[in-house]
Amino acid sequence: MSEIKAITPRDKDFAAWYTDVVKESGLVDYSSVKGSMVICPYGYAIWEQMQKILDEKFKETGHENVQMPMFIPESLLNIEKEHVKGFAPEVAWVTQGGSDKLEERLCVRPTSEVLFCDYYKKIIKSYRDLPKLYNQWCTIVRWEKTTRPFLRSREILWQEGHTMHATEQEAINETLKMLHVYEDFQRNVLAIPVIVGKKTEKEKFAGAEASYSLEAMMYDGVALQNGTSHYFGQGFAKAFGIQFLDQNNQLKTPYQTSWGVTTRMIGSLIMVHGDDRGLVLPPNIAPIKVVIIPIGDSEEIKSVTKTIAANLKDQKISYKIDDRDKTPGFKFSEAEVKGYPVRIEIGKRDLENGEVTVVRRDLLTKVKYPIDKVVAHLAPLFIDIQKSMYNKALKRRDSMIYEANSWIEFSQIAQNKSGFIKANWCGSVACENKIKDEFGMKSRCLITDEKITTNCVVCNKEAKYRLYFGRQY
Amino acid sequence: MSEIKAITPRDKDFAAWYTDVVKESGLVDYSSVKGSMVICPYGYAIWEQMQKILDEKFKETGHENVQMPMFIPESLLNIEKEHVKGFAPEVAWVTQGGSDKLEERLCVRPTSEVLFCDYYKKIIKSYRDLPKLYNQWCTIVRWEKTTRPFLRSREILWQEGHTMHATEQEAINETLKMLHVYEDFQRNVLAIPVIVGKKTEKEKFAGAEASYSLEAMMYDGVALQNGTSHYFGQGFAKAFGIQFLDQNNQLKTPYQTSWGVTTRMIGSLIMVHGDDRGLVLPPNIAPIKVVIIPIGDSEEIKSVTKTIAANLKDQKISYKIDDRDKTPGFKFSEAEVKGYPVRIEIGKRDLENGEVTVVRRDLLTKVKYPIDKVVAHLAPLFIDIQKSMYNKALKRRDSMIYEANSWIEFSQIAQNKSGFIKANWCGSVACENKIKDEFGMKSRCLITDEKITTNCVVCNKEAKYRLYFGRQY
Repeated sequence: MSEIKAITPRDKDFAAWYTDVVKESGLVDYSSVKGSMVICPYGYAIWEQMQKILDEKFKETGHENVQMPMFIPESLLNIEKEHVKGFAPEVAWVTQGGSDKLEERLCVRPTSEVLFCDYYKKIIKSYRDLPKLYNQWCTIVRWEKTTRPFLRSREILWQEGHTMHATEQEAINETLKMLHVYEDFQRNVLAIPVIVGKKTEKEKFAGAEASYSLEAMMYDGVALQNGTSHYFGQGFAKAFGIQFLDQNNQLKTPYQTSWGVTTRMIGSLIMVHGDDRGLVLPPNIAPIKVVIIPIGDSEEIKSVTKTIAANLKDQKISYKIDDRDKTPGFKFSEAEVKGYPVRIEIGKRDLENGEVTVVRRDLLTKVKYPIDKVVAHLAPLFIDIQKSMYNKALKRRDSMIYEANSWIEFSQIAQNKSGFIKANWCGSVACENKIKDEFGMKSRCLITDEKITTNCVVCNKEAKYRLYFGRQY
Repeated sequence: MSEIKAITPRDKDFAAWYTDVVKESGLVDYSSVKGSMVICPYGYAIWEQMQKILDEKFKETGHENVQMPMFIPESLLNIEKEHVKGFAPEVAWVTQGGSDKLEERLCVRPTSEVLFCDYYKKIIKSYRDLPKLYNQWCTIVRWEKTTRPFLRSREILWQEGHTMHATEQEAINETLKMLHVYEDFQRNVLAIPVIVGKKTEKEKFAGAEASYSLEAMMYDGVALQNGTSHYFGQGFAKAFGIQFLDQNNQLKTPYQTSWGVTTRMIGSLIMVHGDDRGLVLPPNIAPIKVVIIPIGDSEEIKSVTKTIAANLKDQKISYKIDDRDKTPGFKFSEAEVKGYPVRIEIGKRDLENGEVTVVRRDLLTKVKYPIDKVVAHLAPLFIDIQKSMYNKALKRRDSMIYEANSWIEFSQIAQNKSGFIKANWCGSVACENKIKDEFGMKSRCLITDEKITTNCVVCNKEAKYRLYFGRQY
């Protein structure tokens, strides 16, 4: 097992554990380009799976992929005032092309609202041109000072949907529709429970009228924002002068949305499901669902390996055979660190009984199956693993959601517990800031399906909202 | 037909024709970011098809996708001397991050050899780590002064394979293997005949030991380099100090390749197959193979449209129904400008005979088929269209390849004809330059399967090579 570095125990040092897992599972490696990472084949394969599943959903819901420029001239970035204030401090500036100094500097896109608006202004003239439902898969750049693989990086792989609609209602519906596409994906594919809700004014996206986010809780109780969907109203459209003639030949301003998810989701997969042995991937997202490990190299073992591989191929179950010249112990460890949902061990003793051993990664339990029946058992097994991983994550998350009805309660929980705190709030930025300043906790999102029973947990004035608070990555 | 702009006839002004076709078919639009273009949904869908088909081939041949940083620190770009000379004059430089001036400027990758080498140096230690067969799909930047959609752009979408091997022979085999993957793709998917061969020393890639290219001839006789595959030998590996321990525990330097294709291939699709009505797409690459155009909106027409659409869906044939409130004439024109391989017209008169009309885009011929048999006729029709488009392109290309055995012959052909010229050459850069300076023709690639019968076409000294010459995009 010499080649696999020991992984720091998760409960001893969660940050070190995370770094060990991303590195040892072969998801990411450090690059000599400061602030940028190398996404290794296994990490990229997970991103490809995410892209494939989401892209299909986007297309099913009527969206089309496009590719906009990656550079934004400074004057274009400056058009929407809130937006530029939010992004200008963290962009990379291109000031020279070849040997020439540029007349106007260009930033590498940190997000593409202004590029889409600039283009929509050109192509939207009539109600017949609406809605425009465009999406883009690309890399964006944000000049972060401190970086961590998948969580905070100067280069982020993501998708960004940007849509334009004739009516407010249609744009709001789109915002919520895509929010729910993300929610389904995270629950059913990533097996990650998410809290879905509206951001406060202070926490919303620069230039948005309303921002909704998907808040996942990591194993350590810290929040990871796993995706956002924004309703822009007419803010950008007005700033860019986008107008269309409606059915009655009246000039109108369209309503806009944007929504996106990034490779951060890989970070949340690691931090929600991983354990002391490494990554644990839900079958619905795993690029390789099964690893077959032949123990020994007798003709019989080889032949059974081939048969099972052929059955897996027939059933379109992704698999890999690990027949390298390494010890079984090494291979088991590697299969565990990589988080393949299932491993099939093919050994001499089992074969004497006509059986092979199936080990599920999430529980590390072993079951023996007859050779010819093993593959048929996998489909229900994957369903069970997927469900069980979701329920485990849900149970842990729910056990780490607390309720505070007074400042004293809030303080005590914030100082002694990790997780989210539900609390009532008057709506003032001052109170929101106080919680952030004292405990490093930001508001996560509004709770709309529970009653507000007490006053603001900070100032004790009348509460208007109920909120989740939590620390964040 | 008011919404479709008239397309400049191809034989009147080829450049204007090209611009009209890319714009009117909805592949690309101009952006207000100088030198960058917007790839519209239809153009991006073609690129997605290319990606899907090629990516599958890359994976079948053992390659894995990764993602490297997009920025290259200046000191890293400077490591391989030939390479930096070739690329430094055309890169975009990031000099500022947020509000800080960078200590070292970074270029936006114009290609990623140095990034891969920097990473390979870190991960290749032993013969067991070889080969490394990595590929990357990404956007690169080259600071071009004049740009044309798909042909010359500041931002280029592409894939770049970068591989490392223990032996010279293995690396040479890889270079040629991927060249042939490209060749197959271009012939059988894009229906584009390509001349495949080695570049001269002068024309090879900056830092390569040998460059091979796929040379396609456009309708106007001008060459488009449709892909390249390079053998690097140990040049980069030595410059970067990449070494591995072989089976005998000896330190060795590995051998390297790189290979790539870009969205330029969309440019060649347009310029090889397009006609005065617009784009003509081969079925094997068309994102939408069939457009159904109902003429009228009677219940019967609607019902037949539905039936045929259901059959297409069953057969997994991509299609689109154009039931917009437009005239049939407009829809036919649009179907033609977009180059859908086949359109099915569903009209009242045909239905009286139980038939619908099928129009193939390449020949614009019409055939009537019984409603229930039409979809079954499509598979063989697509094969026929694909073959016929390839043969047509091949015939035209071959008719525009000339042979020159003396300077006088070369001059006369170069001044009077468009196309490629085969000629013998002594191997001196002076002679190669003379042809370029006098006629704007560069050497395309070496011909190795034909005998050298005369002396150098320029200096009349002994010829060592036989070459294609041609003007290029």
